[in-house]
Amino acid sequence: MRILVMGCDGYMGWPTCMHFSSKGHEVIGIDNYFKRYTALELDCEPIVLNPNLVERTRIWEGLTGNKIGIYIGDVTDYHFLKSIFIDHKPDVVIHYAEQPSAPYSMLNREKAAFTLQNNLISTLNIAYAVKEVNTQCHIIKLGTMGEYGTPNIDIEEGWFDIEHKGRTEKFLFPRQASSLYHTTKIQDTDMLWYYVRTWGLRVTDLMQGPVYGIFTDEGKQDSRLMTNFHYDEIFGTVLNRFVVQAVVGHPLTIYGSGTQIRGYINIKDSLACVYLSAMHPPEHGKLRIFNQITETFSVNELAEKVYAVGKKAGYSVEIKHYDNPRVETEDHYYNPKYTGLMEMGLHPNYLTDEVVEELLCLVERNKGCINKNSILRGVKWNK
Amino acid sequence: MRILVMGCDGYMGWPTCMHFSSKGHEVIGIDNYFKRYTALELDCEPIVLNPNLVERTRIWEGLTGNKIGIYIGDVTDYHFLKSIFIDHKPDVVIHYAEQPSAPYSMLNREKAAFTLQNNLISTLNIAYAVKEVNTQCHIIKLGTMGEYGTPNIDIEEGWFDIEHKGRTEKFLFPRQASSLYHTTKIQDTDMLWYYVRTWGLRVTDLMQGPVYGIFTDEGKQDSRLMTNFHYDEIFGTVLNRFVVQAVVGHPLTIYGSGTQIRGYINIKDSLACVYLSAMHPPEHGKLRIFNQITETFSVNELAEKVYAVGKKAGYSVEIKHYDNPRVETEDHYYNPKYTGLMEMGLHPNYLTDEVVEELLCLVERNKGCINKNSILRGVKWNK
Repeated sequence: MRILVMGCDGYMGWPTCMHFSSKGHEVIGIDNYFKRYTALELDCEPIVLNPNLVERTRIWEGLTGNKIGIYIGDVTDYHFLKSIFIDHKPDVVIHYAEQPSAPYSMLNREKAAFTLQNNLISTLNIAYAVKEVNTQCHIIKLGTMGEYGTPNIDIEEGWFDIEHKGRTEKFLFPRQASSLYHTTKIQDTDMLWYYVRTWGLRVTDLMQGPVYGIFTDEGKQDSRLMTNFHYDEIFGTVLNRFVVQAVVGHPLTIYGSGTQIRGYINIKDSLACVYLSAMHPPEHGKLRIFNQITETFSVNELAEKVYAVGKKAGYSVEIKHYDNPRVETEDHYYNPKYTGLMEMGLHPNYLTDEVVEELLCLVERNKGCINKNSILRGVKWNK
Repeated sequence: MRILVMGCDGYMGWPTCMHFSSKGHEVIGIDNYFKRYTALELDCEPIVLNPNLVERTRIWEGLTGNKIGIYIGDVTDYHFLKSIFIDHKPDVVIHYAEQPSAPYSMLNREKAAFTLQNNLISTLNIAYAVKEVNTQCHIIKLGTMGEYGTPNIDIEEGWFDIEHKGRTEKFLFPRQASSLYHTTKIQDTDMLWYYVRTWGLRVTDLMQGPVYGIFTDEGKQDSRLMTNFHYDEIFGTVLNRFVVQAVVGHPLTIYGSGTQIRGYINIKDSLACVYLSAMHPPEHGKLRIFNQITETFSVNELAEKVYAVGKKAGYSVEIKHYDNPRVETEDHYYNPKYTGLMEMGLHPNYLTDEVVEELLCLVERNKGCINKNSILRGVKWNK
């Protein structure tokens, strides 16, 4: 298959390129290096600076003999995106080309406006490129479990049957997020669903929970092929952050009570989910939604896990509760359904002690590169 | 009160300025003349070209002694908008500064991207200006009944209590629109609701149905003060269009079966609703939603009304069903609730024969100015 990966320099993007390439697919990647520039601008670069994309494709080709095509450019530029669609006629486009950070979207108005504009125009452009160039193309879009928020009822898998005053209707499951970034994902969903109904596009929306980990089968083969590992407040995800904090002796940064529960997933499983989705496309005119998580934890439980494994490995780990900079409910019901991907064939890699140990080892090896200033910079949701 | 009207050159904008001014409020208006430029570009200007805003404020001041302040500029330019907030500290900001046409948003990708960007960035900027300059300010936002679409269950007034597997939660009533324009209104709602929860803003969202009419108490006093009257496919609303079609001998343009039901409102009542909302602001941290319609009709019923009144006035009116260029359900359940504004004091002006007659007279007087080419230009939702 011909796979187009938009946002191929990101945490998920580059591993996705290698994963599909290793299985014999023709892979084209696009990125505008937004995340690299922003990490530089905000002094929150990843633990190891990754080679640029062209360099990484050379390393990959040397290792496997497989080529990955790279375009550096911006998918909000429609003419750029459309020309790539015309040249490559992808069977699947995987859309990671969004500003992915909730704290970034809350920094100030300019960052909020950028997030809105980048995320929505990129999604609009994909819908148009598929419609105008190749309506067969299957769009795989990364959504987020954060779109649902923490409602007091069970979270269904994307859709929802409602009975109201004796009549029934099927709707998208209600969405109500807790950052501007997460809100743009809701807006994406609304927009894609609109074009699915109107133009008969076929779309898979993967409602992903926070991802952790760094080791994928392909990335393990050469350290220069590893994905970027962020541990800072802007781009880092919670488990990766806790591991770094344990290694450098920073208290584990729990926001508020730590009773906030979320669904989590190992990066290996994220890749498997995207791959399964690509191999089993939905019909035309269908928006298929999966909740892409494999287990749920409270923040306290994650911290305790890192604490226990860290202690065993000889680190003096401290847990600390900080005033919650976010506006979110801390004590809440949380019961999401996530059976769709398992039914399609996902075999989860759960968060075992070994996974935490492996991360601790990687971070230990790169301890000297850690920028402690980036761990807590104090972005407040409501100031 | 100090009232800031964004989009003050529009169909609702200028009448709103006069309405508040006539009741002794201090009114400031902003517009970028987008609609005038676009009507010029697309050859669909209103039946009478209205004097520019500065000229209209001079006429208004001559008539009433009341000043209305005008800024020509773009509210997507945050520094421009913020400086006006700083200078005038409005008590109420009324947000009409959106690209208001569904067909325009379906013309091509560029118009869709403009609609997204204009409507969302303008709304974002208001939220930020209120937060940064004057958190007391009450935001009144024009939504649309089109956000709800035509679900198979009763449409509640903005909110919805759900019972699901023995647990309950309150959500925004599900939204599912039938144009990109209407989808941007859903996206607005999601975004404003987010900032209401996070920053404690106070917002009234008026879910308005298609408006008809032209005569308001203030606009009647001098023909140069009348609002703009569009009858074209891009900016015209259905009843106004039918009246023009009756006068020029064009068949009444029913799309599809004509069984599509919507809620309608007289422009006089629209002004009254906005005024009532401004006089009775919601609490901080509250998104208050009203369904702003006064009665429902099928398109066929509207056509029959214009047919009957037109016949009586001596016009030979023909009704014609065209292939529906839109992707929408034609036979559907429709039962929206709209009691909130009546409970607050609205006394509706219903669609009587006299209202249609009055419109016919106005159009007859300006018959020579009608551009028949703009009545049907063939924008297709799905081509």
